Amino acid sequence: MNTAELVELAQQLRVDSVRAAAAAESGHPTSSMSAAELMAVLLDRHLRYDFERPAHPANDRFVLSKGHASPLLYAAYKAAGAVDDAELLTFRRLGSHLEGHPTPRRLPWVETATGSLGQGLPVGVGIALAGKRLDRAVFRVWVLCGDSELAEGSIWEAAEHAGYEHLDNLTAIVDVNRLGQRGPTRHGHDLDAYARRFAAFGWHPVEVDGHDVDAVDRAYSEAESTTGQPTVILARTLKGKGVASVQDREGLHGKPLPDPEEAVAELGGVRDLRVRVQEPFTSRMLHSVPTESLELPRYDKGEKAATRDAFGRALAALGTARGDIVALDGEVGDSTRTEFFAKEHPDRFFECYIAEQQLVATAVGMAARGWVPYASTFAAFLTRAHDFIRMASIGGAGINLVGSHAGVAIGQDGPSQMGLEDLAMFRAVYGSAVLYPCDPNQTAKLVAAMAGLDGIRYLRTSRGAGPVLYGPDEEFTVGGSKVLRSSPEDRLTVVAAGVTVPEALAAADTLAGEDIPVRVIDLYSVKPVDRHTLRRAAEETGALVTVEDHRQEGGLGDAVLDAFLDGRPVPRLVRLAVRTMPGSAAPDEQLHAAGIDAMAIAATGRLLVEEAVAL
Amino acid sequence: MNTAELVELAQQLRVDSVRAAAAAESGHPTSSMSAAELMAVLLDRHLRYDFERPAHPANDRFVLSKGHASPLLYAAYKAAGAVDDAELLTFRRLGSHLEGHPTPRRLPWVETATGSLGQGLPVGVGIALAGKRLDRAVFRVWVLCGDSELAEGSIWEAAEHAGYEHLDNLTAIVDVNRLGQRGPTRHGHDLDAYARRFAAFGWHPVEVDGHDVDAVDRAYSEAESTTGQPTVILARTLKGKGVASVQDREGLHGKPLPDPEEAVAELGGVRDLRVRVQEPFTSRMLHSVPTESLELPRYDKGEKAATRDAFGRALAALGTARGDIVALDGEVGDSTRTEFFAKEHPDRFFECYIAEQQLVATAVGMAARGWVPYASTFAAFLTRAHDFIRMASIGGAGINLVGSHAGVAIGQDGPSQMGLEDLAMFRAVYGSAVLYPCDPNQTAKLVAAMAGLDGIRYLRTSRGAGPVLYGPDEEFTVGGSKVLRSSPEDRLTVVAAGVTVPEALAAADTLAGEDIPVRVIDLYSVKPVDRHTLRRAAEETGALVTVEDHRQEGGLGDAVLDAFLDGRPVPRLVRLAVRTMPGSAAPDEQLHAAGIDAMAIAATGRLLVEEAVAL
Repeated sequence: MNTAELVELAQQLRVDSVRAAAAAESGHPTSSMSAAELMAVLLDRHLRYDFERPAHPANDRFVLSKGHASPLLYAAYKAAGAVDDAELLTFRRLGSHLEGHPTPRRLPWVETATGSLGQGLPVGVGIALAGKRLDRAVFRVWVLCGDSELAEGSIWEAAEHAGYEHLDNLTAIVDVNRLGQRGPTRHGHDLDAYARRFAAFGWHPVEVDGHDVDAVDRAYSEAESTTGQPTVILARTLKGKGVASVQDREGLHGKPLPDPEEAVAELGGVRDLRVRVQEPFTSRMLHSVPTESLELPRYDKGEKAATRDAFGRALAALGTARGDIVALDGEVGDSTRTEFFAKEHPDRFFECYIAEQQLVATAVGMAARGWVPYASTFAAFLTRAHDFIRMASIGGAGINLVGSHAGVAIGQDGPSQMGLEDLAMFRAVYGSAVLYPCDPNQTAKLVAAMAGLDGIRYLRTSRGAGPVLYGPDEEFTVGGSKVLRSSPEDRLTVVAAGVTVPEALAAADTLAGEDIPVRVIDLYSVKPVDRHTLRRAAEETGALVTVEDHRQEGGLGDAVLDAFLDGRPVPRLVRLAVRTMPGSAAPDEQLHAAGIDAMAIAATGRLLVEEAVAL
Repeated sequence: MNTAELVELAQQLRVDSVRAAAAAESGHPTSSMSAAELMAVLLDRHLRYDFERPAHPANDRFVLSKGHASPLLYAAYKAAGAVDDAELLTFRRLGSHLEGHPTPRRLPWVETATGSLGQGLPVGVGIALAGKRLDRAVFRVWVLCGDSELAEGSIWEAAEHAGYEHLDNLTAIVDVNRLGQRGPTRHGHDLDAYARRFAAFGWHPVEVDGHDVDAVDRAYSEAESTTGQPTVILARTLKGKGVASVQDREGLHGKPLPDPEEAVAELGGVRDLRVRVQEPFTSRMLHSVPTESLELPRYDKGEKAATRDAFGRALAALGTARGDIVALDGEVGDSTRTEFFAKEHPDRFFECYIAEQQLVATAVGMAARGWVPYASTFAAFLTRAHDFIRMASIGGAGINLVGSHAGVAIGQDGPSQMGLEDLAMFRAVYGSAVLYPCDPNQTAKLVAAMAGLDGIRYLRTSRGAGPVLYGPDEEFTVGGSKVLRSSPEDRLTVVAAGVTVPEALAAADTLAGEDIPVRVIDLYSVKPVDRHTLRRAAEETGALVTVEDHRQEGGLGDAVLDAFLDGRPVPRLVRLAVRTMPGSAAPDEQLHAAGIDAMAIAATGRLLVEEAVAL
């Protein structure tokens, strides 16, 4: 298209944004209108994309970091022929693929779910990094950001990561329309303020009038020809551009235009221009994904090993067997034990430094490119990435997250380092799997199994060495459990996982000595939970004690109850968990102080059995 | 002290750090040793602090953002005479105040709990902002950061906030020792790399040899005399400085020195120098905290109002009654309705832009200075600050957090904007209160009540207008509930909160028409939960249905079970919650699709009652 046609295309994108929001009676047309030229020029002149083959390895990747500008995205899909006008007008309605904020669950051209600001650029960095270091493909990643979202720290984690990795296949386009939701941004139209910041982080900044299609075209070309560093295009724009009654005005965020028909007329009416988006460069898949037989580490009974060690060794073995496994860490690989993977597969290891949001975002970006990421840090610090995990689940991303140093059992470091809320956080994530092994052989098997699941998979590991409870050939299914002690006379069931399993066994030994036979279940799959085994134990033994190195809310105890909350009779149950604020102390002192050691389990069990006699 | 004495003092801080970690057989002596001169010069020459009066309003505030360097902090306390040598050697032991990472729960001189990196500077910004705009006091805030933690996005949220607010009462001291936990940082000893970044964010950077006490002294003086912008002192240091076997070496993070006795000898032996820390400037408390009678907004039955509106109006009224109330928002005040407060009390309103970690950190900093903050954004986006909320609870901070736009009931915006995990997140926080009102009068009362609680208090508000169910003089206690329908013949109890309360009432009406009398409980206090009323309902009606606009894990349903998990018989229970991934749709369509509307409640109730007959 020539300049005049591009101008027309931009107007069409505005018109369709206004129409979509008007039809929905909600949405963000003014935030779409500011970026119309930025989108028009990208679509016609620079993006290389085959809409019929969204999985094409050489397709450029476009991420709408300012996800609320979805009308603009859908208007662009219409201009590219991927969506028709009738579908455009289903925007935000029940059952429509055109949701308020775009998600890959609904549309194959969307790389990642956005709508929580400050997440598109971090995920774009992950995709660009995959392009550079894994795919070794020629595609470019284009990320359209808002100016408001530059206040999010995650943007600067991404900026640091991209600058450091010299991601010249990445272009951030910032729609500097000066207005956030509530009012003006901190820096208004001061493009220099943003340029200074990005330049300091190693980016090439380009300032441009975002409504001048030729200038925007030149800026994109400059980005494409810049080597050795990512480019940020800082585009001065006006929110609501093109319609005088809303242009550059406050108080109009996230609302349809007051008079859509008049606005469409002011914008020159409805058009039906079609863009021929350029095809991707011809590309071979340069990376191969060799598959060898998996040889997991094996531990013999009598040994002691920490589950974090078993995780690290199993991940390294999995990486040997499968070429699509990648590992990422938040600068604590010597603690999480991803260092074993890093040593054996340095080309597929990604150091993300102490930036947990970018750690998870990089995993999401790599998963979008077909890789199978395992991202690790302390369980406690995964809370830093909670919103990224939430958004990853909305987008249907398949990622493995591994949190080490869980619970009070870490000992002296104290509560700041103890993951005590991680099970609750991950259980509440839609479609997640939550695994908490107690033994190194079990850990190894679960590390391999989780790679094959959908959605968010979480593995919780422990710092200290524990006994080997299972043989190396024992199998463990996600959604299963292991009954470690059982007899027809059992009067109580203790359900444990991770570090509390040996405590439960010790308590069962104590109670057995008092003629109280106790069933012990290792509930290593906290979600999905083994309803069958739990229900049977409840029926046969009458009462349950759950014991977990976690807060009482949302963890193992609540997971056990999931087996009974469909209206059936619920067993009597006592939930042992960490109810106090721990301090520094030795691991055994911590378990004792929290009331989750063998002594506490035995005392609780005794009481429950006595009460059952009294009832 | 003169130069030679300062050098000696720094050596003493090193020696005591080595000794403390040796006694504990754990800890971070090498991370302490790099910053010994930085601490010695601050303590002797620049900090103004009365250790006997930690609440003195003019005391400078010191925050150890690199919380793992706690041995250095405790060694400084010893040098200042606040802790004796015997206590120093209790480091990290059970019951000691000298925990692995410092917390104000244990020590009155600690401003905020640290240990999760990247949080001390953000909280320091909150304290400095309180000093400038609320206390209007002369104190300075000194924050000692590590270089590794500069990778955290939260540091740059803080840098942006402090630069924009011209916080010249704030000094960040960065101990650039080049080594993180696992190995070298991204930028090593490239102080210029950090200087460029901070300068771009509006800070005055000063580069210095961190082991040259005179140069450090000059740098601090430069910070004190810099006006209009915060200062960052970038100090080139060596990890493990002073002991050849560990100095500037990898693989020695977080470990006692291999031969502590030899190290102490190499450092010149044990000393017992005492520092006379300068007294704070004489200061009046310039802010007054007037108290007037509270006149909450009143809503009449028959009206409709959104709980977010009621929150905003109640907060503004509370701000009128109490001069110590402050409000903060994440650039969505027109949605959360803190705009009402901002309009009436602009001097006590703080716009934090789209930076939720800094939003919560600012609240924590202001709470440390005695203010009563209410920080608001969408419930969904509070997940962004999960780790800050966790650390705030460890530090015992008293803050109010308010999440709006909770649940699928927001409608068309779709899942990225829906808080569906917030109840689970906040319930798992130690000592938290979780409130979820359904009615504007109830909201107003709870907004006032939460100000008087300890710890983390969370209020969940809704977007859409709902009916007024309670009169304006009804009282609501935290930990209570309201029984909205009750008869001696009730065969079922429905427990609801927020938007599901009107649905529960409608379902009760439907079932009443089928001769199934149903009790309805409004469980507005999700934590603590009203055990007494729930237990009585279970005894009298036999079965419970819980219904919540939240994920099934960790929310209202699990809160109800908290009343029964001490071994007593548990009622039959069905938990209705959001089990699918919602899309865009109208609010009533969303409640229906999620199976949490009146129709779903009635159908479930019918089934439970029929089953009870069958049992």
